[in-house]
Amino acid sequence: MGRTSDAPQQLVEAARSLLHDRGYSAIGVAEICERANVRKGSFYYFFPSKQALTVATLRTTWAAERGRWLELLDDEDGLRGLETLFREQAGIQLEHHVSTGSIIGCLYGNLALETGASEADLRSCLREIFDDQSQLVFSALSKAASVGTLSMNRVTMETGRGLIAQLEGAVLLAKLYDDPSRLANLWQQMAGLLGIARS
Amino acid sequence: MGRTSDAPQQLVEAARSLLHDRGYSAIGVAEICERANVRKGSFYYFFPSKQALTVATLRTTWAAERGRWLELLDDEDGLRGLETLFREQAGIQLEHHVSTGSIIGCLYGNLALETGASEADLRSCLREIFDDQSQLVFSALSKAASVGTLSMNRVTMETGRGLIAQLEGAVLLAKLYDDPSRLANLWQQMAGLLGIARS
Repeated sequence: MGRTSDAPQQLVEAARSLLHDRGYSAIGVAEICERANVRKGSFYYFFPSKQALTVATLRTTWAAERGRWLELLDDEDGLRGLETLFREQAGIQLEHHVSTGSIIGCLYGNLALETGASEADLRSCLREIFDDQSQLVFSALSKAASVGTLSMNRVTMETGRGLIAQLEGAVLLAKLYDDPSRLANLWQQMAGLLGIARS
Repeated sequence: MGRTSDAPQQLVEAARSLLHDRGYSAIGVAEICERANVRKGSFYYFFPSKQALTVATLRTTWAAERGRWLELLDDEDGLRGLETLFREQAGIQLEHHVSTGSIIGCLYGNLALETGASEADLRSCLREIFDDQSQLVFSALSKAASVGTLSMNRVTMETGRGLIAQLEGAVLLAKLYDDPSRLANLWQQMAGLLGIARS
């Protein structure tokens, strides 16, 4: 049996890097193939379009990150996990800034603003990811209320989405100003949203 | 004396509409000229580049919106003005959804995520606009604290930026889901951030 092709993995990695650097509209299949060192024929053997590769890239990325979210949220009181998770999100931007000199931003947020109704598959994939994130946050809020560390009236999907919105908005501004210190008080803001003591 | 040219104004309006519809990277000078019904020679007579026209478009747009912000924030207790302002921001998205069937989103937020270090003038213009917005919100917070409707410890530029981040993040998600109801509880979330009673 022959070795399986590395091309899909290489294309996904090239797409992830290019999407972060230059966004969706600005890149083309030829450029992705060049970065991946894969021929155009191979691209179309594995993916029908740039959109299809982008969806595969987002699914792969979120599958890995989701594992980390679950791990962090597997705490006893719900809130501590959320705090660690959101502090880590800020930390990722800071680390990237230290190592490369720029803020990497959020791949999902970037694409959410750049894509419209004409990229239906991509949009639907992004909705699934944000739904999943909001649901994971909501579960942590439920756990916190059940052990008494959060008021029951904050346990709503709206609150879960509000925390994700706060994260996305803060990362957007940190990216625009190329300044990770903009994320330093992210958890404080979120604590306000949750009506808990600001640590 | 001859009539002054309408071309700059037509180009700005065409650019605003195209930037909302398709973003910055996806559009070109030829398309903007076609939408504006202006010849390419005229474009380059008034603007050296797509980036220069985009900066002019953002400045024109924010100058008009800024007047409205000042008007709304000119209230007696600061907080009421902020509430009206942010409810109006949600209302604009709802109205646009009713009249066109889609969420228009935030032009500044869209471009903030789509442009990078290579578009230095555009980035600098967006930073000025978000600085100005945060400063206007901060002034309203100061006024609220001075009349006793807000705790003094919330009167920081971080809180001002936090409210703008919440607005941007919530509009991003409303646009992705094409659902203005996602903005229905925006002020409630912000009231949480401000540590005031959620109305």
